[in-house]
Amino acid sequence: MTGADCLLQTLALNQIEVCFMNPGTSEMHFVSALDRVTAVRGVLCLYEGVCSGAADGYARMKGLPAATLLHLGPGLGNALSNFHNARKARSPIVSIIGEHTRGHQKYDAPLSSDIAQFGRAVSDSIRTVESPECLGLAVSEAIAAAIQPPGRIAMLIVPADISWLETKTIGAVVHSPQRLMPSSESILDAARLLRSSSNAGIILGGASMSRRALEAAGRLSAATGVRVFADRSTPRLASGRGCFRVEKVPYFPEDASAALGSLTHLILVEAPTPVSFFGYPNTPSSPVPETCAVSVLATPEQDGAAALEAVVEECGAQKARPPAMDDEPLALPLDSPLTADAIGRTLAVLLPEWAIISDETISSSAAILPYLMRAASHDQLPLTGGAIGQGLPVAVGAAIACPERKVIALEADGSAMYSLQALWTMARESLDIVTVILANRRYRILDVEMRRTGASRIGARANDMLDLGRPDLDFVSLARGMGVPATRAATAQEFTRQFRTAVSERGPRLIEAVL
Amino acid sequence: MTGADCLLQTLALNQIEVCFMNPGTSEMHFVSALDRVTAVRGVLCLYEGVCSGAADGYARMKGLPAATLLHLGPGLGNALSNFHNARKARSPIVSIIGEHTRGHQKYDAPLSSDIAQFGRAVSDSIRTVESPECLGLAVSEAIAAAIQPPGRIAMLIVPADISWLETKTIGAVVHSPQRLMPSSESILDAARLLRSSSNAGIILGGASMSRRALEAAGRLSAATGVRVFADRSTPRLASGRGCFRVEKVPYFPEDASAALGSLTHLILVEAPTPVSFFGYPNTPSSPVPETCAVSVLATPEQDGAAALEAVVEECGAQKARPPAMDDEPLALPLDSPLTADAIGRTLAVLLPEWAIISDETISSSAAILPYLMRAASHDQLPLTGGAIGQGLPVAVGAAIACPERKVIALEADGSAMYSLQALWTMARESLDIVTVILANRRYRILDVEMRRTGASRIGARANDMLDLGRPDLDFVSLARGMGVPATRAATAQEFTRQFRTAVSERGPRLIEAVL
Repeated sequence: MTGADCLLQTLALNQIEVCFMNPGTSEMHFVSALDRVTAVRGVLCLYEGVCSGAADGYARMKGLPAATLLHLGPGLGNALSNFHNARKARSPIVSIIGEHTRGHQKYDAPLSSDIAQFGRAVSDSIRTVESPECLGLAVSEAIAAAIQPPGRIAMLIVPADISWLETKTIGAVVHSPQRLMPSSESILDAARLLRSSSNAGIILGGASMSRRALEAAGRLSAATGVRVFADRSTPRLASGRGCFRVEKVPYFPEDASAALGSLTHLILVEAPTPVSFFGYPNTPSSPVPETCAVSVLATPEQDGAAALEAVVEECGAQKARPPAMDDEPLALPLDSPLTADAIGRTLAVLLPEWAIISDETISSSAAILPYLMRAASHDQLPLTGGAIGQGLPVAVGAAIACPERKVIALEADGSAMYSLQALWTMARESLDIVTVILANRRYRILDVEMRRTGASRIGARANDMLDLGRPDLDFVSLARGMGVPATRAATAQEFTRQFRTAVSERGPRLIEAVL
Repeated sequence: MTGADCLLQTLALNQIEVCFMNPGTSEMHFVSALDRVTAVRGVLCLYEGVCSGAADGYARMKGLPAATLLHLGPGLGNALSNFHNARKARSPIVSIIGEHTRGHQKYDAPLSSDIAQFGRAVSDSIRTVESPECLGLAVSEAIAAAIQPPGRIAMLIVPADISWLETKTIGAVVHSPQRLMPSSESILDAARLLRSSSNAGIILGGASMSRRALEAAGRLSAATGVRVFADRSTPRLASGRGCFRVEKVPYFPEDASAALGSLTHLILVEAPTPVSFFGYPNTPSSPVPETCAVSVLATPEQDGAAALEAVVEECGAQKARPPAMDDEPLALPLDSPLTADAIGRTLAVLLPEWAIISDETISSSAAILPYLMRAASHDQLPLTGGAIGQGLPVAVGAAIACPERKVIALEADGSAMYSLQALWTMARESLDIVTVILANRRYRILDVEMRRTGASRIGARANDMLDLGRPDLDFVSLARGMGVPATRAATAQEFTRQFRTAVSERGPRLIEAVL
């Protein structure tokens, strides 16, 4: 058995069945072993940032790690920004990085670099395999590091000769640790607080935006009046009709301060203390009032949903129900111009049941997201780490994790250009993804940020750096160039018709929605 | 004066007149200052790898640094692989990275990360500005670090509030250091060796493939019989009719061993000791025979061209001339199928005088590069660090450095997909670049590498990971999607006609050459 066979077999033994890869010379034996270890599926990506983002999307939906296979230091470099997002999402990922042969490393070959150094900003679990004999164990340990709650990016650097040399022992099955309940003291404290305080808030983060967690949060809200918010960086959240509606902590600090300003107590469930996305002149970084007492019900390592259910029981709220939402039915926006609002309305009416939405809407999100609460039941995968270019790769990973569910990638035009290569993998793997490009032809969010940071006058030369026109990007041509059928919508009616068609068929489609 | 104004003015004062940028919120004041400090031109790139590659191409052609402006850790992450190539090219670059405000850094905001950690793999000159007062000095010091021969990537991390706060003093003019001559002992040793040895070789690297250096090397070759080779990673090399012809050290180790195997002495001029690109089973990493004595005439920090001229003088070879090349005239390959050979032949006949060739030909290079020696005088910018995705961004930087020269990007299809966003910047800036995509629809080099590493049987699943078909990439659509006019050539005649038209016009064009 070659080292590469050992590596793949150890992955397969541990339910790691997909590897998003962009291999080079030092990974050829890994590629070759795919023919022998057929339990691991190789998915080729034309850029490494697609690999890391897809592994993130896969983990968020499947709850299991995928592997990535990258080529040397620069290949890892190209994957880092989506690993940053995956780290903030706490997604488990086993990242295999090929290295020069052990004998070749002392030479300064063109592709020589300190691979571990490339990885350290996004992972504290990086290990180089030192001999064929210890490969199996090293793979097991990397898997164990990845799946330790709440999830981590474990990197394993594998010299090429270790992949081709013989070895005898594959790695072990790794025990999958349970997420632990918080102490009963934390449960009792939270219940006591909710029963006594009329100005309490809960922030849900991490894995605590599941349907089960939301149901418990809804009961607490109905029974105690507690206000419930979602951390903006929650990796996955249940939404749509029938779900308890949770407001995200607003993006801008003034709005966030207004939302949280009257609270006297804040309870965190797998969430960090809220903080502004950026710092601005004369604006505090924290929207939490200084007089507000912050306590932790569940850390990201713990089981927030179970903790909420325990608090429900302690509060005697098992039968409490939030008031039914009596929304008036929404109509399709047939006669309106094409705006983010019209797109949100269309999604609310036409979203298929159990869709997965990869959300990288950026400046359009405030208009679109509220409509999704009124759509059919679905899951949303938000941008966790703020590094744009996540949306299309995460959609790829989600579609591979859940082939029976329709995936919708809601993608800003500026962000799409960071990892557009994901479209090719959608076409090659016939993934059931409808990509909607929200084309406002600006880095629109920066128009707002420019003013907010006090650089109030935007002259012609500065304006040029925020402008995606001259020339306009033509996403219909770009998609076709990578084998994805595409159309352009310039009116709400066109968008509605194209979206209805796209979701009624299987396979990748792209709609450029010109706003 | 804001910090951003101070920063830009200090750059301008030091002849740093172009900034390749992909800004975000923390860099808005830098962007705003472009309207006031008009000596610095902002060039927007839609992906950070385009910024770093363009700065590399600019430095190679201009001999002066450009700046890059990147957004936080993930933005730097996206730029790393082309910074790796730029580091191996020893290109001077001043890389400005925006950071959260100093007050915001203690919070774990979504985009918080250890920015310096992201950069360490490609730079040992990284500094965070600590106050508005020390900004000007810090910028000067970064410039000094960048231009210290032979050139370096200097990173400067600038917290957002330092960009918007007032400061009084801009940085100083940095003295541009001269590259030093090697010691006279080195010169005398080299001359003595060349006069006495009949099996000596010279390897030219770094800046020593200029016309001036090649002329000296040619005289030495004619006078002493020394064989002259080029290091494969030389960042820029003069080529074409009238240039002394220098063979590159071959890519594969057996070929390199055959080329260097009879040498008893090897003299390095700004070049490293030759080493194989990758390690392979049962193949030594170094193609230099153990019996060959290696000496250094000039280090990369020293002036190789001047050193060669001094050796010429010492050898009394001032009037020696290499034999004129008596090539039979080449004809255009009108009736042949479209192959790399046919493309090389077309380039030999139709290349405009003083063109710049950004060379990322990968598996087609062995067929194409020999023809370029017979083309009109030109400069080549090879792939220095082996991290693919360099070719199109380097073409962008070269075209901005030398607006009066035609730039030809010879680009493999697989490599093109790593930084295709460069096409949009070519369109926006109306850059005079003809991009030729060598579309063989494979990671073709990996077919060879797979066999070489001993993974001899390529089954269906492994084959799929090397295959760029299913679907085929349509580069004509991709180029049009970013505003670059494009055509497809399927025969040598079509290619010749399209290339002739493309070089006769100004502005960006793309030809997809289907091999």
